[in-house]
Amino acid sequence: MRKSGQILATILNPTMRTVAFLYGGIKMQFDLLQKLRTNKPMVLNIANSVTQGDVANGLSAIGASPLMTNYDDELKTLAQFADGVCINIGTLDDHQNMLSKDLLNLATDFNKPVVLDPVGIGAVPERLNFVEELIKIDHPTVIRGNAGEIASLVGVSWQSKGIDSLDTTEQSEDIDKIAQSCANKFTCVTVVTGPTDTIATSTELAHVQNGNPMFTVRVGTGDMLSSIIAAFAGVSDDPFEAAKMASLTFSLAGEMVMSDHPEVGPAEFSTRLIDNLYSLSSDQLEEWGKFDE
Amino acid sequence: MRKSGQILATILNPTMRTVAFLYGGIKMQFDLLQKLRTNKPMVLNIANSVTQGDVANGLSAIGASPLMTNYDDELKTLAQFADGVCINIGTLDDHQNMLSKDLLNLATDFNKPVVLDPVGIGAVPERLNFVEELIKIDHPTVIRGNAGEIASLVGVSWQSKGIDSLDTTEQSEDIDKIAQSCANKFTCVTVVTGPTDTIATSTELAHVQNGNPMFTVRVGTGDMLSSIIAAFAGVSDDPFEAAKMASLTFSLAGEMVMSDHPEVGPAEFSTRLIDNLYSLSSDQLEEWGKFDE
Amino acid sequence: MRKSGQILATILNPTMRTVAFLYGGIKMQFDLLQKLRTNKPMVLNIANSVTQGDVANGLSAIGASPLMTNYDDELKTLAQFADGVCINIGTLDDHQNMLSKDLLNLATDFNKPVVLDPVGIGAVPERLNFVEELIKIDHPTVIRGNAGEIASLVGVSWQSKGIDSLDTTEQSEDIDKIAQSCANKFTCVTVVTGPTDTIATSTELAHVQNGNPMFTVRVGTGDMLSSIIAAFAGVSDDPFEAAKMASLTFSLAGEMVMSDHPEVGPAEFSTRLIDNLYSLSSDQLEEWGKFDE
Repeated sequence: MRKSGQILATILNPTMRTVAFLYGGIKMQFDLLQKLRTNKPMVLNIANSVTQGDVANGLSAIGASPLMTNYDDELKTLAQFADGVCINIGTLDDHQNMLSKDLLNLATDFNKPVVLDPVGIGAVPERLNFVEELIKIDHPTVIRGNAGEIASLVGVSWQSKGIDSLDTTEQSEDIDKIAQSCANKFTCVTVVTGPTDTIATSTELAHVQNGNPMFTVRVGTGDMLSSIIAAFAGVSDDPFEAAKMASLTFSLAGEMVMSDHPEVGPAEFSTRLIDNLYSLSSDQLEEWGKFDE
Repeated sequence: MRKSGQILATILNPTMRTVAFLYGGIKMQFDLLQKLRTNKPMVLNIANSVTQGDVANGLSAIGASPLMTNYDDELKTLAQFADGVCINIGTLDDHQNMLSKDLLNLATDFNKPVVLDPVGIGAVPERLNFVEELIKIDHPTVIRGNAGEIASLVGVSWQSKGIDSLDTTEQSEDIDKIAQSCANKFTCVTVVTGPTDTIATSTELAHVQNGNPMFTVRVGTGDMLSSIIAAFAGVSDDPFEAAKMASLTFSLAGEMVMSDHPEVGPAEFSTRLIDNLYSLSSDQLEEWGKFDE
Repeated sequence: MRKSGQILATILNPTMRTVAFLYGGIKMQFDLLQKLRTNKPMVLNIANSVTQGDVANGLSAIGASPLMTNYDDELKTLAQFADGVCINIGTLDDHQNMLSKDLLNLATDFNKPVVLDPVGIGAVPERLNFVEELIKIDHPTVIRGNAGEIASLVGVSWQSKGIDSLDTTEQSEDIDKIAQSCANKFTCVTVVTGPTDTIATSTELAHVQNGNPMFTVRVGTGDMLSSIIAAFAGVSDDPFEAAKMASLTFSLAGEMVMSDHPEVGPAEFSTRLIDNLYSLSSDQLEEWGKFDE
């Protein structure tokens, strides 16, 4: 975790920029953020009803156009419009399940990238059942979850308490394996979020080390990231690059809150996170992003 | 747009008040804000599920009593209670469509003012279809939308990207025409929001110039305004005056955020907007409101 | 209401701690807050859709694990997981009504504490009808409402405007009677919130005097408290103690906002309330809690 004050230090000491480059590599497509803001991709969401306001505002702040729907009649029209799709199963019911399946079919027909957020499947078998049904229709472009959720998709047991938790003593090698196993099994990019975010295809791996412990206290930050991945996937032909940039942007936006306001609570964190998504620049990503690939 | 610091300048320079009066005219019914706070009108909403929390809090902050319902059994009871009704089609489904129709009928029976917010009809034909069905039941008292939404109601093509966007190069004459055409066609007050808000009946026109670009970044500000119009309509027999005062109050509350905090992001903007709705006085409206009529 | 600056004064003047003890008594189980944070009880909610984001974030901030569901298939699994249950009728529909009944049955089967929040029953007969049906299934562990809501449950008329209002001229003796009558009638702990919170069993009474007038302006604060009572009930065998500690913690977290920021509006109040729920310590509860029992 970057310490408070480091941003200022970096500004004052231009040689640190080189360090950041050496540390982070230079393959990230930092210009995707500007492309997102220029193109304003429309992201169509089957949303978690608890967090949909935050998700919509996170998308809008970063420069995308959020669209949430529960309406069968308009689903096809919206799927054609959309640049990216995010299906979040956080508040399933029979109607949302049906819409999710229909939307996955439509996204296949119209060749739109789909991000799947399998909220709670690590703890709730009925949710895992639904996701397994859903994935039979077609493989999503990206799956994003915590270690317990992704582990359950590949049949690995993973201790978890509640639906959002993550053991911080996790071994990163295990997470790499789970992420690549999921990527391989479902032929999709897999993002496992936690203190470090792991982004995997069956053959590639990247890690983002930026972050903020408040991401686990504020409800719905994972949901926001999933939809933001869909926004980046809507302006890129390479979903692995899109997922890496989304994770880096989101994690750094959160980390900058802590650097600037170390004592912040979870509600003020959310306000500042969204406002950082609005103001964050590609230069800041290059400067302070901590990742390997 | 009022520049930062102007409020202080105005306070220090009492002659500017006269300027404001000359600039703005003096016909606005500024006392409606106090009447709203005294009467605490109950506003019954068929709400956009994404933004209903913000809408409820905006209503409560300005002094109204928000009430959201999805329950057939209580609809008649609540329609009788209500001082104003707002129907927002932002998150349609079959059940909300049915409730919206029932509520429009009940509002007619009980003679309650109805504000219709036709979210997204400029871009989504299925939403336009539903609104056309809805309006056949009875004409709403007020329709509020952006230029693309109102244009689609009167069959004028209007370029738009996404469901909320607005081309800032719009020509105000065109918007005046569209607003009056809608007002004439549906025998209702029409409010077209944008950098300038246009309020029209078939024979009258007013414009509010206060505002803040963040209104277009923060999701749901249009939804808030629509429900606030219903609150003002609940304490006035003249929906044109109610719509003007609602627009002026809401726009100025947002503009004051920018004056006081020019660098604010969209999330902090929302917090401060709601808090300004709570604290704004009739005197401030008279002093800093920028409008013509 | 504690005056602004008193917290600092108390810190500087250790003798005030004794005063607080004398004033407040020493029977509150202050250690329940730490137990909650250690155990992280999972609170399963049939939620008010308008306020569910705030409720989830309030629960997460204080240290509980929030879980909202609308999904029949997973209800039994989640009811087994849950440490506490909260049923909020603020946004009834046929499906939520059915889920609420099923969940109350499951909670009985699995012996989980249930908090019922009968939003709006004081004003809306159809809601009272539903709650009366619901309570026939089994008595909840705790019922929390405002004076008008609890009065309607025991057949006492109580003037109210809107669904959330409370006459501040209420006589505390009347509220004591209503609370104990409800506790007696339904064999449950009853919490009546207002400027003073009254917590009753058929034989016991306690009052919490901390608070902040903004609790009545910010939508959903009552909903948050109800779910937080369920969190405390999930870490205690004594629901009366759990309800007292929940009320004290929540009321003080709100009061501290006013002490530190006397001019705060309702939106900033909400941010700071949630952040105080995150940071509040047992020591602060002992120090500044104002209650009798």
